[in-house]
Amino acid sequence: MELEVTQEKLTFALSCVSRVASSRTGLPILGNILLRADKTQLIVASTNLEMAATHHVGAKVIKPGSITIPAKLISEFVQNLPKETIHLKVKNNQVYISSGKYTSTINGTVDDEFPELPSVNKKEAVSYTLTTQDFKSAVSQTIIAASSDSTRPVLTGVFWHSYDSSLYCAATDGYRLAEKKITKTSSDLKAITPTATLQEVLRTIKDDTTEIQMLFDETQVTFLFDSVEVTSRLIDGNFPDYRQLIPAKTETYFAIHESEFARITKIAGLFARESGGGITITVDSDKSTVSVHSVATEVGENTSEAEVELGGNSGSVSLNSKYLTEALSVMDSEVVKFEFSGKLAPCILTDHTKSPNYKHIIMPLKS
Amino acid sequence: MELEVTQEKLTFALSCVSRVASSRTGLPILGNILLRADKTQLIVASTNLEMAATHHVGAKVIKPGSITIPAKLISEFVQNLPKETIHLKVKNNQVYISSGKYTSTINGTVDDEFPELPSVNKKEAVSYTLTTQDFKSAVSQTIIAASSDSTRPVLTGVFWHSYDSSLYCAATDGYRLAEKKITKTSSDLKAITPTATLQEVLRTIKDDTTEIQMLFDETQVTFLFDSVEVTSRLIDGNFPDYRQLIPAKTETYFAIHESEFARITKIAGLFARESGGGITITVDSDKSTVSVHSVATEVGENTSEAEVELGGNSGSVSLNSKYLTEALSVMDSEVVKFEFSGKLAPCILTDHTKSPNYKHIIMPLKS
Repeated sequence: MELEVTQEKLTFALSCVSRVASSRTGLPILGNILLRADKTQLIVASTNLEMAATHHVGAKVIKPGSITIPAKLISEFVQNLPKETIHLKVKNNQVYISSGKYTSTINGTVDDEFPELPSVNKKEAVSYTLTTQDFKSAVSQTIIAASSDSTRPVLTGVFWHSYDSSLYCAATDGYRLAEKKITKTSSDLKAITPTATLQEVLRTIKDDTTEIQMLFDETQVTFLFDSVEVTSRLIDGNFPDYRQLIPAKTETYFAIHESEFARITKIAGLFARESGGGITITVDSDKSTVSVHSVATEVGENTSEAEVELGGNSGSVSLNSKYLTEALSVMDSEVVKFEFSGKLAPCILTDHTKSPNYKHIIMPLKS
Repeated sequence: MELEVTQEKLTFALSCVSRVASSRTGLPILGNILLRADKTQLIVASTNLEMAATHHVGAKVIKPGSITIPAKLISEFVQNLPKETIHLKVKNNQVYISSGKYTSTINGTVDDEFPELPSVNKKEAVSYTLTTQDFKSAVSQTIIAASSDSTRPVLTGVFWHSYDSSLYCAATDGYRLAEKKITKTSSDLKAITPTATLQEVLRTIKDDTTEIQMLFDETQVTFLFDSVEVTSRLIDGNFPDYRQLIPAKTETYFAIHESEFARITKIAGLFARESGGGITITVDSDKSTVSVHSVATEVGENTSEAEVELGGNSGSVSLNSKYLTEALSVMDSEVVKFEFSGKLAPCILTDHTKSPNYKHIIMPLKS
């Protein structure tokens, strides 16, 4: 194998795939990156057996071939080279990399031992193409509600599914639930994608990426964008029928600027550290005010008030300030709507629009 | 105590002193901040018994008095308030803090238990006033060579001293040594300041701080700037007579752009991780080149070359790439000079000027 490639392109591909390459598994070869040159391009790939990332890099290929090479070393080396042309040559399983006066030899391993890269069965697959903005917003708004508890694997992913002719994604950890309605669809889908894969895709998307294609088959998903392909297994199992948890109607609601609600919640949370983050939101419909209150028995207490547009009855509810802060941080609109029905029913946070397509449900704390 | 103060001023003072306040010691009161209002100002202070920080904050004092209050809670609370006037009132050891619709009560502790804030004996003290730039550069250039090994306390500090009518500071961990000549002086000084104090001063200096006064007495040092005072004990003991370690003459030298030398060193260091960071610098006076070489037995090897202005004999030396990278990162000038004398003598890195006032000495690795 012998080729020439620009430092910028190779650096980008290596930095992405080296995140996926893993030296933690028992298989040392998974700490390597696969380099494979065909006639016109260099394929840079890695896998941790759950997920694989493949970049197609335009290169001047002098001689096709392939090799695997330690991920961390080559990506750090190439990243520190000047932004010029890099010459890469493999001889006797040694990779000679040079750029101007910088030369290195890195010991490679033949690619026979490297696991086959997974790929979705494209004939069977259901395909969706989303704008980057829609994809990023759907994923970042739901992924925060996914569980990190591996004893219930289905809750550790994001559930992509069709419902009532629309594509949705949703996630829940049992204490909160996030649901995003993304776009119209005529196809049928039920697939749970691991959060690690989605985070990797979010990290790899560039500012000028315009759209992203998702291909789902029975067991795998591929995300395709620019010259990048990220493939991952799906999480096996049935996602809970979460829609029954979303209250159809609520007794109290108010609309408030997201930034003000976030500030009040954060401040109240400071005083709630010792009590597990519990803060109490009280709506006084006579005074048209919302107050947020928290108490730290030994330390002190805090109350903040805001004048808001409100409806329904007076009432109060206690919830975890951390959940509310995280939910507020991913809202799309300047003004948000918060709804609840007394101390026991789930609270609903949405954008303050007529038919919001994002819902964040938070279970109250029993006090 | 009752007063009004702007959120910006109070936030700055609290964030600085709360770094010094320590909840790790056995004395819970040291996790508190002292607030003391006299007629025209609020004093915000904290101490960890080694070091104390005091800020003088302009305030509209309604009633003088004092209290101590948990550092972390009050600084985070005030930091999250809007940039408006804050009203602060103490009643029955409870601190009432309000700003618009935000109100909190924090339980305080009377200041009787708070340790007396240390102060330098100003009559006896030796005083130096440096420009902020001189101070920052002297400290950041030497502090990197200080030791973190507490078994030899004198090496964990920076040694400020007069020598040959000049003020110097220096630090060494036995493997490297940094010395900065700062300014002319007629006074006598020998004082070792803890690195933690210097780091705190560096962090607290603002962009518009123009100068900093240092007051040394027998056992303590105070750094005075803007309305801030940082006082610390000095480290007891004699700093080693380091000047004898600096070679008076060297056999080989070259001048090189700092950025190129840094890049070559960093790249070589990547291949030297398993061998304790060892890289070899070789000067070929016939070819007028410097090459930097490193080997990782199982992984590969690396060589980078640079054309440089050089003098003296050909030769080579091995040293720790980490030390060289750190030293290069604090150099003032674009072009630096590197001198050595074979494999065993210390190497010298300086700015490439006629009489450089900063010297960084690195001991070679025996290979």
